[in-house]
Amino acid sequence: MAGVDGGLLMNHHVHVAEKPDWPSFEVPAPVTFGGDPPPETTILVQGRPDERVVDSLRNLGAIVVPWAGIPPEPLSLVTNRPRLRLYNLHHNAVDTAEMALALLFAAARRLSMLDASMRRGDWSPRFARTEATRLAGKRAVVLGYGAIGRHVGKVLEAAGMEVVGVRRSNIGTLDTILPSAQVLVIALPLTAATEGLLDGRRIELLPRGAIVVNIGRGPIIDDQALYRALRDGGVGAAGLDVWWNYPTGDPPHYPSNQPFHELPNVVMSPHVGGATDSSEVDRAAHLAELVARLVRGEPVRAVSVSDGY
Amino acid sequence: MAGVDGGLLMNHHVHVAEKPDWPSFEVPAPVTFGGDPPPETTILVQGRPDERVVDSLRNLGAIVVPWAGIPPEPLSLVTNRPRLRLYNLHHNAVDTAEMALALLFAAARRLSMLDASMRRGDWSPRFARTEATRLAGKRAVVLGYGAIGRHVGKVLEAAGMEVVGVRRSNIGTLDTILPSAQVLVIALPLTAATEGLLDGRRIELLPRGAIVVNIGRGPIIDDQALYRALRDGGVGAAGLDVWWNYPTGDPPHYPSNQPFHELPNVVMSPHVGGATDSSEVDRAAHLAELVARLVRGEPVRAVSVSDGY
Repeated sequence: MAGVDGGLLMNHHVHVAEKPDWPSFEVPAPVTFGGDPPPETTILVQGRPDERVVDSLRNLGAIVVPWAGIPPEPLSLVTNRPRLRLYNLHHNAVDTAEMALALLFAAARRLSMLDASMRRGDWSPRFARTEATRLAGKRAVVLGYGAIGRHVGKVLEAAGMEVVGVRRSNIGTLDTILPSAQVLVIALPLTAATEGLLDGRRIELLPRGAIVVNIGRGPIIDDQALYRALRDGGVGAAGLDVWWNYPTGDPPHYPSNQPFHELPNVVMSPHVGGATDSSEVDRAAHLAELVARLVRGEPVRAVSVSDGY
Repeated sequence: MAGVDGGLLMNHHVHVAEKPDWPSFEVPAPVTFGGDPPPETTILVQGRPDERVVDSLRNLGAIVVPWAGIPPEPLSLVTNRPRLRLYNLHHNAVDTAEMALALLFAAARRLSMLDASMRRGDWSPRFARTEATRLAGKRAVVLGYGAIGRHVGKVLEAAGMEVVGVRRSNIGTLDTILPSAQVLVIALPLTAATEGLLDGRRIELLPRGAIVVNIGRGPIIDDQALYRALRDGGVGAAGLDVWWNYPTGDPPHYPSNQPFHELPNVVMSPHVGGATDSSEVDRAAHLAELVARLVRGEPVRAVSVSDGY
């Protein structure tokens, strides 16, 4: 707990690397924004802090990543500096959960294929054999049962699904759960324990026609195995917001080495699960509250460096 | 109530115009399938029955439309023959509700635009100002609060929305409700009272950026007014499964005279709300149960010819 040890209570100076749009930000300590942090900085708010800058700060006790996901840079920084605490935000759990729901309901109805067809004036899917799946009465397994997973689970229960939430600590039970997962929602962070979790063997454990939704991180799933299962019908549909390849340089940037973009049974979005009209407002408010709590020495859960989240 | 009057209890013969795939259909009366109905038919199962055929049937007491929506043909047939009762099915209310949810969640995230962009390898929406709407904490008005509307309402409440269900009998209160409808879901049948209900004046009553979902029938909304509001930003997004123009002859068939297919803030599907892997099975089961109840003289709600549903 910050403030309980590590000297965070005294002589705080908070430096925020990128100025957020927070009109009513109130922190009981001096705050600087942008540019280089002053040496007396005790709390640094920055997503990907530079190692040399961090080591130039005399009293640094905490790094706050102003995002939900934790990049590798601050994690390795803190790993090698045990006195430093690392914090992140959980401001947009509901937004990310709503993206998971959008991807799931849309994938169940093959909505991206229907929409593209209608935009060409082609009604043929109306007269073809339906490939849509009714969700009510089916079983949804939600992998990762934190704030995002629980919101998804609550909504799917109201929609008449049987919901099985699997906490990260119970991931060992996965192989026994997958054969009944008609819907699989992945809301896990990427850690050493989750990378490659849904590999080819586990994808084959899913019931035929299952729907897979991923709003965690791409590399939790083996993309080649998922692509093949979607193409061959083992997996019925997928809704994916997170990917294996991210854009660098000039477009086009396909988000995987597998041609997911050619499949009619996939709904694709560019890792925007957490972003809505409300999430930036909430980011500023949650960040201000988190920093204020650290300054006041109130208990805040820090990132577990060994678990990676 | 069928069986109470009209002689339906005696000497039943049920004729089903199109043979459904019902392996376990059990009706306590002779049933014929396909071709011309025999003259002694007392219950005719047909979506768009021919007037001359109907008048050739000696004991006809009931027409069962094996769909959820009631076409104009059987409605006018029954209007002019007061001895005839008209029935329809409600087998796929959950499927249609799930389509409404898919369209709403997808429209809130501009999912069709995001998907089309990702299929071109274009990630630019990830770096643009978000146009996504958080649904939690907002108010949803569900117009038509039968089986479909109530399922939608239950799910949206679990998703953290405030839900106002408006029954058809309360539609007079609409003008006072629309100014707070951040989400408007239309789950009404098309009747004389609902045609053109959401006209230009009422669309302007909606709060700026509202999301409109229609799984009822196209002509309940004025398409020109909705198109303009979507184009100009008065309405933020729409999810539409039902339309103004239906396909005839060769494609392309655009579903409205307004170019909805050019708008990035619309999610379009070709009137397939009621169709899933489960709905055909349920159609057969519900139809068999309805016909069996009519034969046994058990109470069944008939279509109100004056109300049109």
